[in-house]
Amino acid sequence: MSSFVLKGDIAFNETREKIHTIEDGFLVCEDGICKGAFEVLPDEYQNLPVKDFTGKLIVPGMTDLHVHAPQYTFRGIGMDLELLDWLNQHTFPEEAHYKDLEYAKKAYSYFTYDLKRSFSTRAVIFATMHTDATVELMDQLEETGVISYVGRVNMDRNGGVDLQEASAEVSLQETREWLARVNGRYAKTFPILTPRFIPSCSDELMKGLGALSEEMDLRIQSHLSENPSEVAWVKELVPESTCYANAYEIFDTMGNEARPTIMAHCVYSDEKEMEILKKHGAYIAHCSDSNMNLTSGIAPIRKFMDAGIRIGIGTDVAAGSSMNMLKAILNAIQASKMYYRLVDQSVKPLTFEETFYLATEGGGSYFGKVGSFKEGYEFDALVLDDSKMYSMRNLSVRERLERTCYNDADVIISHKYVKGENTFQR
Amino acid sequence: MSSFVLKGDIAFNETREKIHTIEDGFLVCEDGICKGAFEVLPDEYQNLPVKDFTGKLIVPGMTDLHVHAPQYTFRGIGMDLELLDWLNQHTFPEEAHYKDLEYAKKAYSYFTYDLKRSFSTRAVIFATMHTDATVELMDQLEETGVISYVGRVNMDRNGGVDLQEASAEVSLQETREWLARVNGRYAKTFPILTPRFIPSCSDELMKGLGALSEEMDLRIQSHLSENPSEVAWVKELVPESTCYANAYEIFDTMGNEARPTIMAHCVYSDEKEMEILKKHGAYIAHCSDSNMNLTSGIAPIRKFMDAGIRIGIGTDVAAGSSMNMLKAILNAIQASKMYYRLVDQSVKPLTFEETFYLATEGGGSYFGKVGSFKEGYEFDALVLDDSKMYSMRNLSVRERLERTCYNDADVIISHKYVKGENTFQR
Repeated sequence: MSSFVLKGDIAFNETREKIHTIEDGFLVCEDGICKGAFEVLPDEYQNLPVKDFTGKLIVPGMTDLHVHAPQYTFRGIGMDLELLDWLNQHTFPEEAHYKDLEYAKKAYSYFTYDLKRSFSTRAVIFATMHTDATVELMDQLEETGVISYVGRVNMDRNGGVDLQEASAEVSLQETREWLARVNGRYAKTFPILTPRFIPSCSDELMKGLGALSEEMDLRIQSHLSENPSEVAWVKELVPESTCYANAYEIFDTMGNEARPTIMAHCVYSDEKEMEILKKHGAYIAHCSDSNMNLTSGIAPIRKFMDAGIRIGIGTDVAAGSSMNMLKAILNAIQASKMYYRLVDQSVKPLTFEETFYLATEGGGSYFGKVGSFKEGYEFDALVLDDSKMYSMRNLSVRERLERTCYNDADVIISHKYVKGENTFQR
Repeated sequence: MSSFVLKGDIAFNETREKIHTIEDGFLVCEDGICKGAFEVLPDEYQNLPVKDFTGKLIVPGMTDLHVHAPQYTFRGIGMDLELLDWLNQHTFPEEAHYKDLEYAKKAYSYFTYDLKRSFSTRAVIFATMHTDATVELMDQLEETGVISYVGRVNMDRNGGVDLQEASAEVSLQETREWLARVNGRYAKTFPILTPRFIPSCSDELMKGLGALSEEMDLRIQSHLSENPSEVAWVKELVPESTCYANAYEIFDTMGNEARPTIMAHCVYSDEKEMEILKKHGAYIAHCSDSNMNLTSGIAPIRKFMDAGIRIGIGTDVAAGSSMNMLKAILNAIQASKMYYRLVDQSVKPLTFEETFYLATEGGGSYFGKVGSFKEGYEFDALVLDDSKMYSMRNLSVRERLERTCYNDADVIISHKYVKGENTFQR
């Protein structure tokens, strides 16, 4: 059932710097695991059924390492605001609606419908502070076929009207109840602790979440160094911290190599912050679309890569306007070019190869052996129809892949596989 | 035939800073001219046929002020290169193929097919140096319904293999022959003189084109101050010039208020260059997608606007990867935010309203009274179906418009009108 061969034009990163392509090749899946990509189908797999996608591109599934599900229905609105104003005027009032389970059910159905049809095979997701709505989201996600981590958001301060938990104690208690409800409930959907960011969480709440992470072996996701005003605010809130990342460290929420914390943004992370991220084996979720929309700035991803920090790409809906990971790849390349040109010409732009790597294996590694067609990786694959983009040349597979990422509106997802399961087809 | 009323959710710029919206309003077209947008249909227009687009957005058609038709079929390829390498490795070898009329016929059919289905109702287009192919392009464009200026490209130096005219004299003679062939041939397609850029044109050729522009009252388009290496090269080539724009001025190719020259890019235009652009009434074609892709930089559009220089938006395919003007709007906003954040915080980002203005009336004014629904404007309109983007709120027309520009892949063109003619419908 989950053992088969896909035939088509295959592309995936052999290394961070190099994309391996096979024109008219064979990609083998055995029990949900990739057995490799081949120019000629090896004898041992000759008995497997072959699905013929000749002429179509076959690439690894993508990991959206940071996305806010409840913000999806107002994406692309209020984009002339900066972070804190945008949160207060658009995001917090919207998220407050998720107290109403019927509202959440409907709104999340729009998100999950589109996620199922997206380029993402894996996602790490923020919900809201509402337990019922978060369980509803997780129930719906389980049906999409996408494998995900989902966080019920903790926030016991600065949330505004109807979007603030009564106390750290209440927030922690609700979190435990949520965890009890979802424990063992899903095959593809996992809980992750989710303090919104330090301005939303009291010291007591942060410490409680750090302890809970350790006690129940749960991962953590949050936001880090996104916007100048936010960074300054955190310094006021945690005056003893040496930097924003250190504030998380103080509360034992930075995780470790085996239980990595995801930090979205890191636009203003300096050498000191990079050291902390590296030391804890944390992941940076790079969200350049969001960072441009909210006038936050550009994260120096090349520096983070050189320092050996783990990095993936997030769409960060709704500060990012789209869940489209191809668009996120293009944005990340353009942002890195502008950082190079306008800020520091010793920081070379990201190449197409490197950015494709971040969107696939880079973020995928958060889920284990995911995001590649190398032997032993979980079989996440996208079959893409790029035939709408006519060409006068015989394009190489590498060229077609680049063109596809630069023209997300002109490519169609033909089939999508997650861990060997065909979760969507057009 | 071209007198009718459209009913729907109408949006257009009342001023550069403000978008006027009417929910469920009426837009009147009489003999191809807009008679205004109304909340209630005035008595005098009650007899006109009403096309009911209730629930759809109706916005002015957009002007793509700078696009290279022969580059369309290789868009999104080689994007890790900077300008001069990209030209030599991809663009020039591709354009050389247009010597072959059959090749041109096929390749241009891909361009015109997609242009017809695009958000652009007006376009200013570069062809190649090949006369037959340029006439072919113009023949095809005439059928799209889009109103355009098209330039047979002049280039008598630095063109590389098979893409360089033999001499200034030959280039000028061929230009005259081309002009004779297309004179009076079209209703919607007009010639424009098109020296590629100064590195491609000898002094003699530039002077000849300046004189021809005057003699035949023809407009000119070219490129200006796109990339640091290019700017430095021009200084070497025209050592007597005080700046790149002055080099064009020396050759009498900067035009005047009534016969405005379009200059694409202007990323590196300083105060001196701005004065020259302003003095001649030139248009800047702002191509931020291209400028990010080729690591050129970001043009300070706010400064140009404040100085009263005329500005429109260009997609600049294929350095811009898409002909999609909505994407170009989003790119222009994001670029301006990064200029503000990374370069100069006294230069405020472009607002959504201002950028929408540039894409419609800003560039449209190059064609006369175009790009608005104010009374007396030529009736260019797009009917857009944004129903795929579900929302939980009752969005205002203004919010739906913003969301549409931020999610170009999720909106569908239902109908397109150019000067009152329904040139495309889905």
